[in-house]
Amino acid sequence: MLGSSERIERLVQELAKMPTIGRRTAQRIALYLLKAPREEVTALVDAIVQMKERVRYCSQCGAITEDDPCMICSDRRRDRSMICVVEEPGNVLAIEKTGEYRGLYHVLHGRLSPLDGIGPDDLTIEELSVRIKSLGAREIIIATNPNVEGEATCSYVAGAIRQPGVKITTIARGVPMGSDLDLADEVTLARAIQGRGEVR
Amino acid sequence: MLGSSERIERLVQELAKMPTIGRRTAQRIALYLLKAPREEVTALVDAIVQMKERVRYCSQCGAITEDDPCMICSDRRRDRSMICVVEEPGNVLAIEKTGEYRGLYHVLHGRLSPLDGIGPDDLTIEELSVRIKSLGAREIIIATNPNVEGEATCSYVAGAIRQPGVKITTIARGVPMGSDLDLADEVTLARAIQGRGEVR
Repeated sequence: MLGSSERIERLVQELAKMPTIGRRTAQRIALYLLKAPREEVTALVDAIVQMKERVRYCSQCGAITEDDPCMICSDRRRDRSMICVVEEPGNVLAIEKTGEYRGLYHVLHGRLSPLDGIGPDDLTIEELSVRIKSLGAREIIIATNPNVEGEATCSYVAGAIRQPGVKITTIARGVPMGSDLDLADEVTLARAIQGRGEVR
Repeated sequence: MLGSSERIERLVQELAKMPTIGRRTAQRIALYLLKAPREEVTALVDAIVQMKERVRYCSQCGAITEDDPCMICSDRRRDRSMICVVEEPGNVLAIEKTGEYRGLYHVLHGRLSPLDGIGPDDLTIEELSVRIKSLGAREIIIATNPNVEGEATCSYVAGAIRQPGVKITTIARGVPMGSDLDLADEVTLARAIQGRGEVR
């Protein structure tokens, strides 16, 4: 529709690929960027480029980091006998904010989702098993999202990593079902960590 | 909150400056870009840079264009005796889509909004007066948005540009009040152009 400029149209198409951005929002953003001061647009472009060049996933836990291994994995004061398993890097930060957890993390980078063609091999479950052994971890807290796919992922992961001497727990369903982990308030999330129960 | 990476945090801040993007959406987009293939991110950055370098406002009507003057201003088949006045460049394309209008346009680049500190001097009203004379226009259709600020802008512009031999009209309020021009469907917008009434 912004057909008077191919370049606006191309930008609208690229923007509309982002999550939560539909075509109309993409148009608004494109027109906003056209009107915005050049310095602001340069700052945005620079922020994207810098992020893409410098930010990566930690080779050990899979969390977001600029240094590898990440701050948490390389922090000798963290409890290495516990690993908290989450779906996405953003979940690590949601849990860190509670101040309730002092162990390590493991990011699955997804959840089991047969409809989207995401199976066990697409997640970092094998890497998790290896880490459990090499760290000598004694408790694995599975903190997948409290929804259908997250629950299924939790059960699957629990079965796949089970080994003698390793307790497998999951955070208490104090977090409301059908929601997303990042949306839980800190108190609810802290309570959920305290009230975690064993996966049987 | 994504404090493990300063560069992610910086990107979140830049993204959150865009319209309709709050902090949480900005985080989702930043994590999406981190995960996305490098080519997709490059395509986005390139689209932004190209748009900012090559797209501009037409020096005559203020619409979006890559060539100056724009396709409409330089189209000799358009009726130069009519100028349709709109608030934003996007409005031009909304009206073009109706196929109902064959005259020229004039983009005010805003609306009167005392609360936001936007007064008559911030709009291209003076330029409009000059164009009316140089084009010898005989009808000015004011198509500001059908809301309080748009109506106020319409009245003000009508008073400011009034001159002998020039009829000043406004599109019929077939477009629902309290809405935005870009949201009107094509039929409603076409009817509104057909049923335009004189500003008295």
